Amino acid sequence: MNIENDARACRAATRQIAALTSEGKNALLQSMADALRADAAKILEANATDIRNAQARGIGAAMLDRLRLDDARIEGIADAVRHVAGLPDPVGQVTRRETRPNGLVVERVRMPLGVIAMIYEARPNVTADAAALCLKAGNGVILRGGSEAIESNRAIAAALQRALEAAGLPRAAVTLVEDLGRETMLALIRLDGIVDLVIPRGGEGLIRFVAEHARVPVIKHYKGVCHLYVDAAADPVLARRLLIDGKTTRPSVCNALETLLVHADIAERFLPDAAAALIECGVELRGDQRTRALVPQAKAASEADYAEEFLDLILAIRVVDDVDAALEHIRRHGSDHTEVVATEDDAVARRFVQGLRSAVVMVNASSRFSDGGELGLGAEIGISTTPLHAYGPMGLKEITTTKWVVVGDGQIRS
Amino acid sequence: MNIENDARACRAATRQIAALTSEGKNALLQSMADALRADAAKILEANATDIRNAQARGIGAAMLDRLRLDDARIEGIADAVRHVAGLPDPVGQVTRRETRPNGLVVERVRMPLGVIAMIYEARPNVTADAAALCLKAGNGVILRGGSEAIESNRAIAAALQRALEAAGLPRAAVTLVEDLGRETMLALIRLDGIVDLVIPRGGEGLIRFVAEHARVPVIKHYKGVCHLYVDAAADPVLARRLLIDGKTTRPSVCNALETLLVHADIAERFLPDAAAALIECGVELRGDQRTRALVPQAKAASEADYAEEFLDLILAIRVVDDVDAALEHIRRHGSDHTEVVATEDDAVARRFVQGLRSAVVMVNASSRFSDGGELGLGAEIGISTTPLHAYGPMGLKEITTTKWVVVGDGQIRS
Repeated sequence: MNIENDARACRAATRQIAALTSEGKNALLQSMADALRADAAKILEANATDIRNAQARGIGAAMLDRLRLDDARIEGIADAVRHVAGLPDPVGQVTRRETRPNGLVVERVRMPLGVIAMIYEARPNVTADAAALCLKAGNGVILRGGSEAIESNRAIAAALQRALEAAGLPRAAVTLVEDLGRETMLALIRLDGIVDLVIPRGGEGLIRFVAEHARVPVIKHYKGVCHLYVDAAADPVLARRLLIDGKTTRPSVCNALETLLVHADIAERFLPDAAAALIECGVELRGDQRTRALVPQAKAASEADYAEEFLDLILAIRVVDDVDAALEHIRRHGSDHTEVVATEDDAVARRFVQGLRSAVVMVNASSRFSDGGELGLGAEIGISTTPLHAYGPMGLKEITTTKWVVVGDGQIRS
Repeated sequence: MNIENDARACRAATRQIAALTSEGKNALLQSMADALRADAAKILEANATDIRNAQARGIGAAMLDRLRLDDARIEGIADAVRHVAGLPDPVGQVTRRETRPNGLVVERVRMPLGVIAMIYEARPNVTADAAALCLKAGNGVILRGGSEAIESNRAIAAALQRALEAAGLPRAAVTLVEDLGRETMLALIRLDGIVDLVIPRGGEGLIRFVAEHARVPVIKHYKGVCHLYVDAAADPVLARRLLIDGKTTRPSVCNALETLLVHADIAERFLPDAAAALIECGVELRGDQRTRALVPQAKAASEADYAEEFLDLILAIRVVDDVDAALEHIRRHGSDHTEVVATEDDAVARRFVQGLRSAVVMVNASSRFSDGGELGLGAEIGISTTPLHAYGPMGLKEITTTKWVVVGDGQIRS
């Protein structure tokens, strides 16, 4: 097994995927979903092996849960593939059309990116999800999952590849990397000109490794340090609702809140009640002096707490003098992921939205909506916190590009 | 001078540029154009020093010509800056708006990319062009030109910075790198998180160096090996016009033709006359056996000739059996820049357009139109032959990104 040969085979296969009609791609995805259901017993058996190996290596309960499959989860994986089949096809869409003064008809037409390498950990569902999204957008995909899920990933990929074969398409369009050594991953992310994009998903260490060593373009987000700023003109009931939803419903995800900023003029009215509600939900509070004067239960926040993605029931709090101080705090400590303002003052809302470069900026809505599905993309292949190509949640369009198609009747420039 | 501090200063300055209105940016560019004209004598003096130094180092005539400024060229540089002022402002455009079933109003709004580093050689006009385009799109720019143009670039940048100061804006929004050592360039292209994009322009060696060592995203094209495929159903007169325009009007640019592919069924009717016309223009022909049977003046083409960007009056020629053979040749030898088909057969045109991944694919039009201005972008900051973010000629929109703006009235996800 040589990763460059594998990637070249995937690239060659991509030509046939790119040439499929929308109907052809949708039929392929439906038959992949069928194959996943038909292989449920095999996939569960493979998963049991992964679980046994993980337990033998003493892997933690959270990781085990992400790894574990059951009938319902396999059903869910197949349903997600069918859902992608039902999404609109971005390929072939004309994003710009103009007739030039010399009669040239100039169009920009959406086309697949090419070969996308996914590098991920633990969750075996990513194997099917990413393959479905990449194929739907006409791309080939190279899947490099974690060693802890290798048997599950192999069983899932086998089902997907059988569906490719049944459709007369090359298996290499969905390529699973079986050699999980670091050297092979390193070679993969340096295949400039063969692989068009790398999307790493997982812990910050993995993502930094990929970003540091890749020669292929990488779309990534390191972390989500999401802020809620409660303005002086906020509706305190609404603000508290956003706070509890953002912090407590799923603290382990990247669009959960990590920091609360409160305007000094509303702090006395807002903070003690909000803190009581948070504490009732089991949230540990870490605040600055002004916060602790109002919320004695809060521990003292360190400077590092304000840049921390806790991924846990912990919240950093600071009282600020105005919206500009809030913006300054977010610019200094934020991760360009998602920020929320609670205010009834349109001028403040505008200032907040315009003053930030974050990928998602929200007014009076929970940070938990920062998700491709919730924002209307239909599905999500990743989130980007660097502005090039895609910023924020990425759907099908974000794994395509546009080419120029120019039609003339003999125009020359000289 | 420390490049990281300089880049941080540029990044900080970018906040003020991003906050300007369209009118503010246009007034700034107009006053930059005025400053360039006012400084014409100083710029010419600086340029004379560059020319003297270049001559002393024995630099070639073509390079000297690219380096040399005169009154008309300075006028042209100022006019180009004014032209950018007149282009529509991409920032703030809403590219997508949707009200979700839960009432959230979701928009994607165009915003500046941030800090753009330009790395280029010889032509001092790039200093003003790139600055104007970056500022118009709300970005800061770090200019790292070649050592041969350092005095000219310094004089041009000084004029631009004076206009920034006069508008009460930080000079650092246009930062000229004065330390042209390789270590400093290396440091610049590794400032991930401070610089948002690097655009290298110049020889293939420079571009490969940047692509190989950058940690910041790079948009680039190595070369333009542009093809004209003359189909069996081509109008021979039209095809010959495209051929002469594409090959002879400016052979040194990247959208000039390098290879001619001719369908076997039209070769006898087309090639001898076309070859005679090319030879009359001083073009050296290098063909395969079938070409040389019809055009005895053609030298034998090597395999390497078909991947070569000659940038000169040399043309590689091959006779092919059909459009699929032409596509196969282009896929193997092409550079994803620009390809042209001459045909009156719509089915062949469609097959050609759909069968290629090149950034620009043309039907019955000269490859020389593959240019941002000609294709309607108003101006061009570079050309990309890698599909991520921007593919083909890049204008103002391509140096922006979009952020998500979500407005609710208290929606939560749980």
